[in-house]
Amino acid sequence: MFDLHPRLSADTILLGRFPLSLCLLMNDMHYPWLILVPQRDNLREIFELPTEDQQQLLRESSWVSERLSRHFNATKINIGALGNMVPQLHLHHIARYENDAAWPGPVWGKHPAQPYTLDNLKMMHDRLREAFADATQIGFVWAE
Amino acid sequence: MFDLHPRLSADTILLGRFPLSLCLLMNDMHYPWLILVPQRDNLREIFELPTEDQQQLLRESSWVSERLSRHFNATKINIGALGNMVPQLHLHHIARYENDAAWPGPVWGKHPAQPYTLDNLKMMHDRLREAFADATQIGFVWAE
Repeated sequence: MFDLHPRLSADTILLGRFPLSLCLLMNDMHYPWLILVPQRDNLREIFELPTEDQQQLLRESSWVSERLSRHFNATKINIGALGNMVPQLHLHHIARYENDAAWPGPVWGKHPAQPYTLDNLKMMHDRLREAFADATQIGFVWAE
Repeated sequence: MFDLHPRLSADTILLGRFPLSLCLLMNDMHYPWLILVPQRDNLREIFELPTEDQQQLLRESSWVSERLSRHFNATKINIGALGNMVPQLHLHHIARYENDAAWPGPVWGKHPAQPYTLDNLKMMHDRLREAFADATQIGFVWAE
């Protein structure tokens, strides 16, 4: 039985599910920021996943990275598996820009999150719908 | 022709080569910190690698993570592909501890690197030799 860590649940909006991972939008308007959480219990490290799950996580991660890079016209995608504060394995994907709030440093611990307004969340959701237009091809299902 | 970025070259010590990636030791005594650099030209993002190279990078990354975790008794392995400052694709692997200099934050941009002394580098090298004792199994070759 997989349960999303309460801290991840509180900080994000559930977009949907890939075959392995939940796909979450970080509730921080500073950056387009998606988090993948493999739906496996009691995992902290990528190397603890069975090899097939590791490869699936990579497929999902690269797919998300490519979409963020292209559709959000990012200068750089930052990928991170930290987990010092939230032990449940989760993989950050952040579209970075030379004029963003933390550039060129990492985003973590830099600025308090700036939660989406309803209007901005609607716009972000529309952009993600466009970026993920063919996501069913890799088994993505939008959350209800 | 693959050339290591001068900044990576200046900040690290070359340990050796996996089939895909150079393995570098970050010259910072604060943390056991290894960097993998795929020996491919003009790459900035993991998703730009051919699928087979992505999977090989994952194999090398998970192998390094597992060895760091086990042999250095880490609380958590932090993995990151940032590249905001150094554009050449490189993947950080950092053994983290609850009493380390940046815990629980990320290490990047927190403290200036504390270069190894010769004695400490010798000790670190010995520990890595032990951690990598069976590394030839996955095609690792120590630098001369």
